[in-house]
Amino acid sequence: MTIPIASVPNGTVTSAKGFSAGGIFAGIKTPGVDKKDIGLLYSERACAVAGTFSQNSVISPTVTLDKERVGVDKKVHAVVVNSGCANTAVGEQGMIDAKEMTDITAAHLGVTSAHTLVSSTGVIGVEIPMALMREYIPQIKVSEDGGGEFAKAILTTDKRTKEIAVSFDVDGVTHTVGGVSKGSGMIHPNMATMLAYVATDADVEPGYLQKVLSESVKLSFNQIDVDGDQSTNDTVLLLANGAAGGSTISGGDEASAAFEAAVLQVCQYLAIEIARDGEGGTKLIEVTVNSAHTEEDALKASRSCAASMLVKTAVYGRDPNWGRIFMAVGKSEIPLDESKIDCYINDIQIVAEGKAISYNVQSVVSALAGDEVRLRVDLNVGSASGVAWGCDLTEEYVVFNSAYTT
Amino acid sequence: MTIPIASVPNGTVTSAKGFSAGGIFAGIKTPGVDKKDIGLLYSERACAVAGTFSQNSVISPTVTLDKERVGVDKKVHAVVVNSGCANTAVGEQGMIDAKEMTDITAAHLGVTSAHTLVSSTGVIGVEIPMALMREYIPQIKVSEDGGGEFAKAILTTDKRTKEIAVSFDVDGVTHTVGGVSKGSGMIHPNMATMLAYVATDADVEPGYLQKVLSESVKLSFNQIDVDGDQSTNDTVLLLANGAAGGSTISGGDEASAAFEAAVLQVCQYLAIEIARDGEGGTKLIEVTVNSAHTEEDALKASRSCAASMLVKTAVYGRDPNWGRIFMAVGKSEIPLDESKIDCYINDIQIVAEGKAISYNVQSVVSALAGDEVRLRVDLNVGSASGVAWGCDLTEEYVVFNSAYTT
Repeated sequence: MTIPIASVPNGTVTSAKGFSAGGIFAGIKTPGVDKKDIGLLYSERACAVAGTFSQNSVISPTVTLDKERVGVDKKVHAVVVNSGCANTAVGEQGMIDAKEMTDITAAHLGVTSAHTLVSSTGVIGVEIPMALMREYIPQIKVSEDGGGEFAKAILTTDKRTKEIAVSFDVDGVTHTVGGVSKGSGMIHPNMATMLAYVATDADVEPGYLQKVLSESVKLSFNQIDVDGDQSTNDTVLLLANGAAGGSTISGGDEASAAFEAAVLQVCQYLAIEIARDGEGGTKLIEVTVNSAHTEEDALKASRSCAASMLVKTAVYGRDPNWGRIFMAVGKSEIPLDESKIDCYINDIQIVAEGKAISYNVQSVVSALAGDEVRLRVDLNVGSASGVAWGCDLTEEYVVFNSAYTT
Repeated sequence: MTIPIASVPNGTVTSAKGFSAGGIFAGIKTPGVDKKDIGLLYSERACAVAGTFSQNSVISPTVTLDKERVGVDKKVHAVVVNSGCANTAVGEQGMIDAKEMTDITAAHLGVTSAHTLVSSTGVIGVEIPMALMREYIPQIKVSEDGGGEFAKAILTTDKRTKEIAVSFDVDGVTHTVGGVSKGSGMIHPNMATMLAYVATDADVEPGYLQKVLSESVKLSFNQIDVDGDQSTNDTVLLLANGAAGGSTISGGDEASAAFEAAVLQVCQYLAIEIARDGEGGTKLIEVTVNSAHTEEDALKASRSCAASMLVKTAVYGRDPNWGRIFMAVGKSEIPLDESKIDCYINDIQIVAEGKAISYNVQSVVSALAGDEVRLRVDLNVGSASGVAWGCDLTEEYVVFNSAYTT
């Protein structure tokens, strides 16, 4: 029997038991209404932790430090995150500052630095203003309803926070998985991606926890694109503190299946919200590739399409230009038989067996005018599917990124 | 002793002896001043021919047909090209029409279909108007000064023709290499690329000819980017008819070195002109990556940078945002040591050993305002170099591609 997954109203990263969080404005970013630029996430109970990180050859020392600490010791208590400055490409000072940020945080929360993780996001090539860190981190108050503050503190060019929580019951014990993410530019598939923090009160075996996170990231954060560019600071952390009081989850049973489904649901929601909030974007584009030879093919082809500038501009212009969809699927170089491809826009078929069919153009143009556009390509050569998400490409993206130092 | 390569004034694809060409307006494209949409390239002497083609999984039947004919028989006489319609994703009719185009051309020129190649470029998903082909191809007059007509006939969204010729002397015999290309959108590295035709009167051993073309394409057409999208119709053909009357060139001597340099020079010129004419672009961006471990690393990192939307928009906005250059080099995932990287914009150093240095910001902003911007990244970990070319990303690209069916 499948255990149902329920949505948690106003869910956020602190919806899981035993997690508290908070945020503060220290002046790293320019001031604004309700702006924050340092956030803390804390669990009194030690957490098993899994992480996936940027594959960029240039990475922030915060990523290097987190990778070490996630690898060595899976009993983490805290994560400190600042926005406005990426602490990347600043020489040796970067690692010194990243470590000091965890020292300050650990002292403030009464834990050890080795059990504290750190992320930074913002402008590359500028040193972290440590004087602000020393002054403001100790002032951050964490609380069980502080998830929203934390969600605000990690934003950069995002227009809104990205928060969710879901829950499932095992033997009368409610387990919750909550998460937050940020990201709007430098977003591209095939990475280990932007900033996202997922927290659960489930008691999870550490090796299995990493497996669940990696699989979920593959089907969520690694399938979104805003602009083809990959950040130097991408980080997804999954913390499990066991505060729900349930049995250990380690794979292979119904509770594990529910846990996997819950983590995937949280990751996909947070990933889709990043695509929807893409810089300059006016609509979410969901690309589904069905009946491919392998899941890898379907995932690759769908993200190639979601990442195509010509598909993005066609959707923006409400142009049912399926030639561009074919081009974008084909450039992924997956095996296919062109004469078998069917293509749909918001469930309206426009291509059958590789050729244009008669359809009501106005209805497709109307579909393309909505807030969400669903492109579907049925390859009809196998049985595997994949989905990817992106946003349209608009003049605003160009104006924003040619006028702004990020 | 190195044989010098000389520029041919007003050089084009028919500058090489024994080649003639012509073009006509048939009405496939919308009419305009001096517009043409079918072109013929012809050599009375049979040509050895080398080709590189699109790696897209969806390809035009014209590409399929050319690949077969280039592979089977290296004695080609003619190439017919139409613009305005890609003859792609039209089902089985596509191959029937592609073959008939070569039949009509062969009959017109008095050669055989098997020795005739064909390319199409333009809108995907629309059948070729064969009635126009049957009416207009036989009207095309080819002449030795018709290279410019041919150059016009292959254009789609290009703002100008792309033509060049160079020559070198071997034992008193002048050898000429001329070429034309088209391309402005759907331009991305790692392909075998857009439309380009290079013709030489050198007598060249066919196997060696392919080797020279492949190496030249690697360092030219495969190193440019406009928008990350890869065409379904990309084709580069190199025809050698031996009309110069020189000895056979087959590699390993000074004449071969001169031939290789001449082909590379022609390919790089034609590739750079495509990048410069990129849809919506206002300036050419040249990215050089030096002192990498391997040439492959340097080529990969330079094209990753030339293809980055955030680098393109920063250049457009005259923003010396070197963090984006670091990100883009790093996302190529080549091995590097961040603390050794130096970075220059138009020869003005802005980063030393991975960190920002003091520089006159106004002088860099002024450099970024020019028609050509040169970004240089010295990795200082090896001795290999690579260069790539792109254009900036502007609002005009978005407007153009959201308002136009291509």
